Amino acid sequence: MPAAGGSPKGGLGSRRLADRMAVVGLGLIGGSLAQAARQQGLVGEVVGIDRDPAHLRAARARRLADRTTEDLSEGVRDADLVVLAVPVASVVRVAREAAPHLPPGVVVTDVGSVKGPIVQGIEALAPAAWAFVGGHPVAGTERSGPGAARAGLFRGARCVLTPTPRTDPAALERVMALWKGVGATVTTMEPERHDAVFAAVSHLPHVVAYALVAALLALPEDGGPLLEFSGGGLRDFTRVAMSHPVMWRDICLMNRGPLLAMLERYRGVLGEMERLIAAGDGDGLQAAFARARAARHEGKP
Amino acid sequence: MPAAGGSPKGGLGSRRLADRMAVVGLGLIGGSLAQAARQQGLVGEVVGIDRDPAHLRAARARRLADRTTEDLSEGVRDADLVVLAVPVASVVRVAREAAPHLPPGVVVTDVGSVKGPIVQGIEALAPAAWAFVGGHPVAGTERSGPGAARAGLFRGARCVLTPTPRTDPAALERVMALWKGVGATVTTMEPERHDAVFAAVSHLPHVVAYALVAALLALPEDGGPLLEFSGGGLRDFTRVAMSHPVMWRDICLMNRGPLLAMLERYRGVLGEMERLIAAGDGDGLQAAFARARAARHEGKP
Repeated sequence: MPAAGGSPKGGLGSRRLADRMAVVGLGLIGGSLAQAARQQGLVGEVVGIDRDPAHLRAARARRLADRTTEDLSEGVRDADLVVLAVPVASVVRVAREAAPHLPPGVVVTDVGSVKGPIVQGIEALAPAAWAFVGGHPVAGTERSGPGAARAGLFRGARCVLTPTPRTDPAALERVMALWKGVGATVTTMEPERHDAVFAAVSHLPHVVAYALVAALLALPEDGGPLLEFSGGGLRDFTRVAMSHPVMWRDICLMNRGPLLAMLERYRGVLGEMERLIAAGDGDGLQAAFARARAARHEGKP
Repeated sequence: MPAAGGSPKGGLGSRRLADRMAVVGLGLIGGSLAQAARQQGLVGEVVGIDRDPAHLRAARARRLADRTTEDLSEGVRDADLVVLAVPVASVVRVAREAAPHLPPGVVVTDVGSVKGPIVQGIEALAPAAWAFVGGHPVAGTERSGPGAARAGLFRGARCVLTPTPRTDPAALERVMALWKGVGATVTTMEPERHDAVFAAVSHLPHVVAYALVAALLALPEDGGPLLEFSGGGLRDFTRVAMSHPVMWRDICLMNRGPLLAMLERYRGVLGEMERLIAAGDGDGLQAAFARARAARHEGKP
């Protein structure tokens, strides 16, 4: 335990949010949060937990945490703040596995891009002795893993927290202070609202980008050589389509309902544009394009 | 006429491609090409032609050309190289208007994003006394007009030229040297191949981006506030959707056939991804996403 961690629990300094923060999962988000919290002096000690020996080695080499372990129960045992930074599809299972080992009064949060099923699943564990706050830092890139982690990842980023009527207000305050402390702008919304918003602004765009790149590659003459000409508008899409396929599979399936609703809406708008093109309706097409552009001029997107 | 323009026609210096280049249309592309050709010493004199007095004022203020006029016939009369840098829907009409005033031996080229209809339309004018070469510098941005022009626009960009069996080889060489001279990498392909390639890598992505932004804005709760969270993947799309609606209307309508074919293909791929999401088929979805990603890893897009 570092010297700074010697203060008794509850006797936190003005910026000190936890004597010991356990980060479960040392990927891009977990690794970056561990390093940022250490650098900002927000916590006494950071324990990094990961089942992947390569992640642990990389985390040690890059000093992302004060100490590391692959043992979940040992890693969380003495923590007063636990961040579940595992893939969305694993968050509830890891919370269930960690639950018997969590000390009373601990605050648990997560970083998943889908919130409804995670918040419901963890609240269903009925954690009487500990508090849960759902969280989603909007800071992913097409890179992943501890090698991509950096303390500045959350500076200027948004972080959405999704409290429910069951959320302990003091726990919410603490998790909010953590994200503000690493430079994020924090917003709160209901889990269901979060999932509808991100189906629209993030999950749909990823599916659209994957589909666009896949459509070009499926061209009979082989899309490859075509794509030397991606300067004409394609390049931004191919960057989005570089995102991790397993992560995005899980996000799409966990947020299936809101995403399918957005896909249906998008299909309708696209079909209408296609109809205008086929009909040679220049006025209609120009108006449709102009509406999308005006929105951004108004500062909306 | 500047001193450097005193050499007789045909007696061009090693880099001198024309004694007098007329650029019709002083928008982003025409204005940038005029300025770049002057700066590189590729031509003796640049005459800038535009019907819009505001464009002419801006071009004069920014010294994009040696002299400017709004009179097409007077502007092209003594030129030995004419660049039609007007919107795609106007290229053939402007060529027809200029034809009676073109001196014998002149080389005419254009910068339109669609090539089949333009090349066919101009070759149908049966220019026995002058030569035409279709061209498309891939260097647009979401900005437009002479105020956005800059000599460096084409440096590192691609330019596609679309010769046909009727194209004069010497004229092709001259237009190629012009684009290489301002820093572009020049590729040649048939007009129909060009239009299929750009339907895929440019026109489809623009329609997809417009449709995506339009779908979000049509949300009942008003898409505006949602879009504060565009860090999650949307931002790249909204930038593409900022492109000029009139220009993109014309491109979509002129390249209707190849674009509708690509839209149909894209709809099929997107529909299959939607089906996998609805069915909860994680393996199928992951495989579909991974194929798109692998393509870029292989350096294709």
